[in-house]
Amino acid sequence: MTTTGERPVTPVGEEPVTAPGGEMYTLVERLYPLCRSITGDGVRATLEIVDEYVPLQVHEVPTGTRVLDWTVPQEWNIRDAYIADSTGERVVDFAASSLHVLGYSVPVSATMPLAELRPHLHTLPEHPSWVPYRTSYYKPDWGFCLAQETLDALPDGEYEVRIDSTLADGHLTYAEHVVPGQVPDEVVVSCHVCHPSLANDNLAGIAVATFLARALARETPYHTYRFLFAPGTIGAITWLARNQERIGNVKHGLVLACAGDRGHLTYKKSRRGDAEIDRVLRHVLASSERPHEIKEFAPYGYDERQFCSPGFNLGVGSLTRTPYAGYPEYHTSADDLDFVSPEAMADTLAVCREAFAVLDRNRRYVNLSPYGEPQLGRRGLYDAIGGRSDAKQAQMAMLWVLSLSDGEHGLLDVAERSGLSFDTVAAAADALAAAGLVKA
Amino acid sequence: MTTTGERPVTPVGEEPVTAPGGEMYTLVERLYPLCRSITGDGVRATLEIVDEYVPLQVHEVPTGTRVLDWTVPQEWNIRDAYIADSTGERVVDFAASSLHVLGYSVPVSATMPLAELRPHLHTLPEHPSWVPYRTSYYKPDWGFCLAQETLDALPDGEYEVRIDSTLADGHLTYAEHVVPGQVPDEVVVSCHVCHPSLANDNLAGIAVATFLARALARETPYHTYRFLFAPGTIGAITWLARNQERIGNVKHGLVLACAGDRGHLTYKKSRRGDAEIDRVLRHVLASSERPHEIKEFAPYGYDERQFCSPGFNLGVGSLTRTPYAGYPEYHTSADDLDFVSPEAMADTLAVCREAFAVLDRNRRYVNLSPYGEPQLGRRGLYDAIGGRSDAKQAQMAMLWVLSLSDGEHGLLDVAERSGLSFDTVAAAADALAAAGLVKA
Amino acid sequence: MTTTGERPVTPVGEEPVTAPGGEMYTLVERLYPLCRSITGDGVRATLEIVDEYVPLQVHEVPTGTRVLDWTVPQEWNIRDAYIADSTGERVVDFAASSLHVLGYSVPVSATMPLAELRPHLHTLPEHPSWVPYRTSYYKPDWGFCLAQETLDALPDGEYEVRIDSTLADGHLTYAEHVVPGQVPDEVVVSCHVCHPSLANDNLAGIAVATFLARALARETPYHTYRFLFAPGTIGAITWLARNQERIGNVKHGLVLACAGDRGHLTYKKSRRGDAEIDRVLRHVLASSERPHEIKEFAPYGYDERQFCSPGFNLGVGSLTRTPYAGYPEYHTSADDLDFVSPEAMADTLAVCREAFAVLDRNRRYVNLSPYGEPQLGRRGLYDAIGGRSDAKQAQMAMLWVLSLSDGEHGLLDVAERSGLSFDTVAAAADALAAAGLVKA
Repeated sequence: MTTTGERPVTPVGEEPVTAPGGEMYTLVERLYPLCRSITGDGVRATLEIVDEYVPLQVHEVPTGTRVLDWTVPQEWNIRDAYIADSTGERVVDFAASSLHVLGYSVPVSATMPLAELRPHLHTLPEHPSWVPYRTSYYKPDWGFCLAQETLDALPDGEYEVRIDSTLADGHLTYAEHVVPGQVPDEVVVSCHVCHPSLANDNLAGIAVATFLARALARETPYHTYRFLFAPGTIGAITWLARNQERIGNVKHGLVLACAGDRGHLTYKKSRRGDAEIDRVLRHVLASSERPHEIKEFAPYGYDERQFCSPGFNLGVGSLTRTPYAGYPEYHTSADDLDFVSPEAMADTLAVCREAFAVLDRNRRYVNLSPYGEPQLGRRGLYDAIGGRSDAKQAQMAMLWVLSLSDGEHGLLDVAERSGLSFDTVAAAADALAAAGLVKA
Repeated sequence: MTTTGERPVTPVGEEPVTAPGGEMYTLVERLYPLCRSITGDGVRATLEIVDEYVPLQVHEVPTGTRVLDWTVPQEWNIRDAYIADSTGERVVDFAASSLHVLGYSVPVSATMPLAELRPHLHTLPEHPSWVPYRTSYYKPDWGFCLAQETLDALPDGEYEVRIDSTLADGHLTYAEHVVPGQVPDEVVVSCHVCHPSLANDNLAGIAVATFLARALARETPYHTYRFLFAPGTIGAITWLARNQERIGNVKHGLVLACAGDRGHLTYKKSRRGDAEIDRVLRHVLASSERPHEIKEFAPYGYDERQFCSPGFNLGVGSLTRTPYAGYPEYHTSADDLDFVSPEAMADTLAVCREAFAVLDRNRRYVNLSPYGEPQLGRRGLYDAIGGRSDAKQAQMAMLWVLSLSDGEHGLLDVAERSGLSFDTVAAAADALAAAGLVKA
Repeated sequence: MTTTGERPVTPVGEEPVTAPGGEMYTLVERLYPLCRSITGDGVRATLEIVDEYVPLQVHEVPTGTRVLDWTVPQEWNIRDAYIADSTGERVVDFAASSLHVLGYSVPVSATMPLAELRPHLHTLPEHPSWVPYRTSYYKPDWGFCLAQETLDALPDGEYEVRIDSTLADGHLTYAEHVVPGQVPDEVVVSCHVCHPSLANDNLAGIAVATFLARALARETPYHTYRFLFAPGTIGAITWLARNQERIGNVKHGLVLACAGDRGHLTYKKSRRGDAEIDRVLRHVLASSERPHEIKEFAPYGYDERQFCSPGFNLGVGSLTRTPYAGYPEYHTSADDLDFVSPEAMADTLAVCREAFAVLDRNRRYVNLSPYGEPQLGRRGLYDAIGGRSDAKQAQMAMLWVLSLSDGEHGLLDVAERSGLSFDTVAAAADALAAAGLVKA
């Protein structure tokens, strides 16, 4: 773990990434108890743990810094918070769950009757045993979140209310991990790190991003991959504000969230709607025959909102399982460790890897012998593939690559037009390039 | 009512437009008995009545005037026409219905046996009790239209035939009413005034146009609205010929016809097919959840034929209920006062008003804070709308307007992409504009 | 029949083309026994017979000539080939069917046990009574093709094997027939002539091309039609190589193959996908109400592969009945004279003629009176057509032609937009052109 200005030096682990589902689940378990918010030590502790898996460059941005249309807020930290009844028993206790306190609560220390306390209590009447997740980042307030059934059981009377928090000038913290590629063109992979004890939204996304970075770091991918671990909205805005000169390098991006529930995968397109990342995810999901959904862009959800704002308009989509606000457990205590599964996270990770493999190989070739078909047999290109069980497909793939390599079509176009798998098409392009018949 | 060269001075009525269906029906009843044609006093009498509702500027164009590829014909007027049997009884009588005489019949005064008369008699054998509507504008002829059952009842014998008409140099008459807008860009609303006693085709269209003009005149709309009351084909051609220097100002248009029958609404697109008026009507009809039909352009129907001729190619569509020639009563005596209803006319009027409200507000905005989302909360834009029951939709609408306000998309695009109502989107744009976040 | 450099002088027959299905079938019968390959006397004999129907210009291209990425191979000729058993009886005999020898077999004269012979024997186990068609053009080899049941009946023992062929420097032979048109813009119609005794693939294509040429030669079509009778792949490549300066004139093309089986027609689009020939065939097939299929381009099949290679990218589609490799009899002895029918060939021919009639008349007109509708009645254009039973359609067609004749739309666009038949639209354009209202 390094801080701004230094480059990561920790060597990337050499061990094979086995059973990533289990490892990701372990990471989620470790992160679960921490009380994250858009600033503060919970974020730092989270990044320290992630740094054990992939080396992070951590950035600390002072309160008050102007970032685009926003200003970095004061830093919030909390040590303890509870409501105690007249016997001194804690009926609501932050130590039991970080969800119990309204995020960014100002400090309070008072005794008051239940009636006076009620406006500060947040429940979910429709799910009486669940604790909701609530925040008040930009309007000073304090409050507690609790189960409706807990509230219903509270007798009238005086309660001691205490929130031992501080809201003071400090920093906003975010981190990056860069996997250098063969070209400076970047793919940004972003996940938010500002939610407290919620497993699917956001810990599964953090875990998948972490293991995706670790997998890519074992090779030299074509693109440079930049992983961003930042608080939602203000974190992405801060990164964008501080990297405006770099934005031109960002060719593609993916926001990861809700990556661990048992629902099927959902890809939400970039604002452009036909960005290369959109086409890659559509192709990978369709050809994988996984149940999935492709959604049009909407200016709501996660940090694709910022990356796709019209001034930037980056080709950044969002991959989730069940999407934003699409499940009852969303932003409640029921989004817990049981709500996510190792298998689901492994599946999300696998699709990301497939998608980036396609993205990295999706180049446009030019047929160097475009008048009539070149004589493949003379060059051993039928033989070269004759022994393979998919010889016929490989031959068709060569003809398709030759046909469409006019500088206008990439290999993904070839795969889509031909109905062949991207791998078959890419292998054909490699064989043709080796024979000097096409050039990237 | 003014004539060419003068501007209307009659003040627009101050009374509220209530129950317009009933008022429009009364107007149709008043106009029904008049014998209109493409020229003559019937048109003038019609325009005099309309002028009681909205002040008209009447134009008189002399016979022989060259108008585009056409020439203004002689003026036709008729005082009486009948067929009388040997006892002197009128068996067909123009006084009973203006439909009984072939439009533009030359004068005739003769006695002849039925056999000689027959070629001049027009009937509808498939509807024996209906009288057809027939004309012969450009080939000198005379004739009578009658019910097949009337014809069947005529005994052989001598008949007195008399048409007291004149066909002589005179004028073609049409009228305009202009509602000045905030900008000189014009919307032309056109209806034909050349059909005699036919209620749906054309009186309902005249009535809806009249009340639409009256409603718009109570406000200062964004566009300038030009209402055109003119005989079909030759009237539109005459207007186009005399206003060629103004055509560049005509940005949109709507031809109104068959506006009062009980069928559902039908919008026929302009020749362009994707003109703004086409998109507006499609959106308003779809979001109104009225049963309706959208038809592609065809070079047949009403005066959209002239406005959409390839040299002009204006964005002019046509709104009808049951379209041109789409009902058996079309161009027969069965298109009478029972065939139209106040409710249908009120519904047609309502859709026109909704459509023009959208057209007038459909502007392109530019997001002045396009890098990342602007902080709406700081500007009170969440609060501003917090008290409304549709607060969530209003907030989404602001995000959509910000996202798509790149100079390429208008508010109608935003409504269609977001699935939100145009009103919600336009209100969001107003709020954002007031906050200085977008600019039209 | 002329050879390179001379122009055909044989006058085109004057007799009416009657019952072309029967005549085409007779041509197929005559060509069936010949042993064609990509070079050699079988091709020459084939062209001599075709020349009896339409005069051909025959081209002889020497072995070793470089043609695009390829080289003209040695010429192959065969006089006899057989496998004889120990009694001297021919158990497989080229004299019985040209399919029995592997195409381009090198000469062999030997005696060997069945076990040694087996690797040179090709059968179709799934169709034990059929003889497959196999070749080895570019890898020196020899072999026999026979029915699986013939092979199964062969006792072990010694067999005399003899192939009396020659593979020597010579020529590749192809032929052209040009029907001069009113303009030098060319339509290339191509069929392959390299398959031995296979009736559907390729003789039916040769027959349809021949009779199509004969039909066109009776008139002076708008386009110049160039018929190409050439061996597959290497023949098309040779023609392209030798005519590169002419390619700019080739505006459209059609590859004919599998033209005689009883399946429905299949049109495979050019690589462009929206070439005029693609739209013409789609329209003609759709409006003919024949069952048919339209397929997207794929870089596999017949010589459209060469014409559509990305360097040329010509607007050349392919018309077949059941397409390439789409029937079990494909490339087997079951593709025999019973597999094709006179009716199917006549149907293929009829569609080609309809398509070329549309292609020849599909011009863009400009409305010379584009402001408003011109007054058709004054010019007798209603009268001119009044007597026809399709008067209403003819009138609509005139309005459509006037509406769309803006230089952007051709008559095929008019037919498709209007839903009228191409003939009706073209007749309307002729009438309007005669009246000076439109100009091509």
